[in-house]
Amino acid sequence: MAQTFNWSIRVYIEDTDVGGVVFYANYLKFFERARTEWLRSLDVNQQSLMDQHGIIFIVKSAAVDYHAPARLDDEVTLTVSAGRIGRASVQFVQEAWCGAKLLATGQIRIGCVNMAGLRPAPIPAEILAKIRKVV
Amino acid sequence: MAQTFNWSIRVYIEDTDVGGVVFYANYLKFFERARTEWLRSLDVNQQSLMDQHGIIFIVKSAAVDYHAPARLDDEVTLTVSAGRIGRASVQFVQEAWCGAKLLATGQIRIGCVNMAGLRPAPIPAEILAKIRKVV
Amino acid sequence: MAQTFNWSIRVYIEDTDVGGVVFYANYLKFFERARTEWLRSLDVNQQSLMDQHGIIFIVKSAAVDYHAPARLDDEVTLTVSAGRIGRASVQFVQEAWCGAKLLATGQIRIGCVNMAGLRPAPIPAEILAKIRKVV
Amino acid sequence: MAQTFNWSIRVYIEDTDVGGVVFYANYLKFFERARTEWLRSLDVNQQSLMDQHGIIFIVKSAAVDYHAPARLDDEVTLTVSAGRIGRASVQFVQEAWCGAKLLATGQIRIGCVNMAGLRPAPIPAEILAKIRKVV
Repeated sequence: MAQTFNWSIRVYIEDTDVGGVVFYANYLKFFERARTEWLRSLDVNQQSLMDQHGIIFIVKSAAVDYHAPARLDDEVTLTVSAGRIGRASVQFVQEAWCGAKLLATGQIRIGCVNMAGLRPAPIPAEILAKIRKVV
Repeated sequence: MAQTFNWSIRVYIEDTDVGGVVFYANYLKFFERARTEWLRSLDVNQQSLMDQHGIIFIVKSAAVDYHAPARLDDEVTLTVSAGRIGRASVQFVQEAWCGAKLLATGQIRIGCVNMAGLRPAPIPAEILAKIRKVV
Repeated sequence: MAQTFNWSIRVYIEDTDVGGVVFYANYLKFFERARTEWLRSLDVNQQSLMDQHGIIFIVKSAAVDYHAPARLDDEVTLTVSAGRIGRASVQFVQEAWCGAKLLATGQIRIGCVNMAGLRPAPIPAEILAKIRKVV
Repeated sequence: MAQTFNWSIRVYIEDTDVGGVVFYANYLKFFERARTEWLRSLDVNQQSLMDQHGIIFIVKSAAVDYHAPARLDDEVTLTVSAGRIGRASVQFVQEAWCGAKLLATGQIRIGCVNMAGLRPAPIPAEILAKIRKVV
């Protein structure tokens, strides 16, 4: 069964908009920060993926439902749960929480591509093995 | 039948990321610019909605599929097509094109809320009438 | 003598641009995150300033010199050093470091304004006292 | 004598913050959009600079003074005036206006660097000639 990874971030003025809340597009950034830290927790560094493997993870699709707004100074906890894993893609379910309040849920599909042509490329076996261990 | 509104924007360095392409979260910004200009073309000004009606449009859900990347200096054309219209919400289908190449498709659901409590509020009748005229 | 406060952040894809490095405007965001955390360390919460005092800190001027670029996955340490303190303004000197490499230096002047009219307002005495203690 | 180039942009929700005005760091983005369009008006395309010359323009220093805030839906006109031109750098003075109201003034120093090592590189002669014609 998939383990859920948690990562907390703080809301700064840069994240807010004229509505007085976090600008909705920024949840995609928050979710990505959490996925990046999840990868880091598996000892996977994306700059190294680029430099050594010539590959980069890109987002193929993203769907977010917004339930409640976050405000300046809120601490927001992001969850990362990897679902279906393909040869060149991983599906994530992610949530954003402020305390016990669910802010947003996301379904993000990531693809692995080569940097040169941005064409689908198999996820390197050693990375895949690390991911499979926690899913 | 719904009329499709088009709005073109230019890709600047601010929009790009280390992958050499437009950062995927920015398509939500692009789509919103186009919806804002679509509203402006209907003579609806969002700052006035806040000042005079005490309401604001918020995004309730957003789903984006990414098909091809845009690059620095590309001209990207966004489409706006309003679908199902409720008393306090509007569903949009939007696309991003670079010439004849489809970059991304989005389904965005917008809700109307009061600014004070961010609770659902009916879209003012005069605004609704303007929207209905083009859908 | 002023104490220097440190705050570390991580570089994510959202922070980068097509040049493969952190987009220069983002250092203003990084510097602000550090100032916000510095204020928090003094037990000053900006959302409360807005809600209880009706004031907000705004940036009056910002000057940044860029010395070296930061890259994806870098850990960047920001310094906060408050200089001249007026009745309604504070001058900061800030630096961004990646390990022993100086990335950027900033001089940021902050003003206190009322939220209603964005007119200069004296910094509340209790806040000023907290700031003066560490400068 | 230097000719001043003008470029107008619109303020969208993405540009605003919880203070109800344009987030100050975004003026650096606005200034850059105007410099990019100024370059384009000289028939200089930055993606081509990267692809054909292997160089990129980077910001070496930026100083902005903020005079008045811009709000959602405002049309902001940016000016571009090139000052001192070196072999590998150009100094710009830029202003942001909303109608007759001066919002911000900026002094931006741009450097030309090679993409590989981000080391200073002379501005290609043909580009320099185009710039010199309007300064």
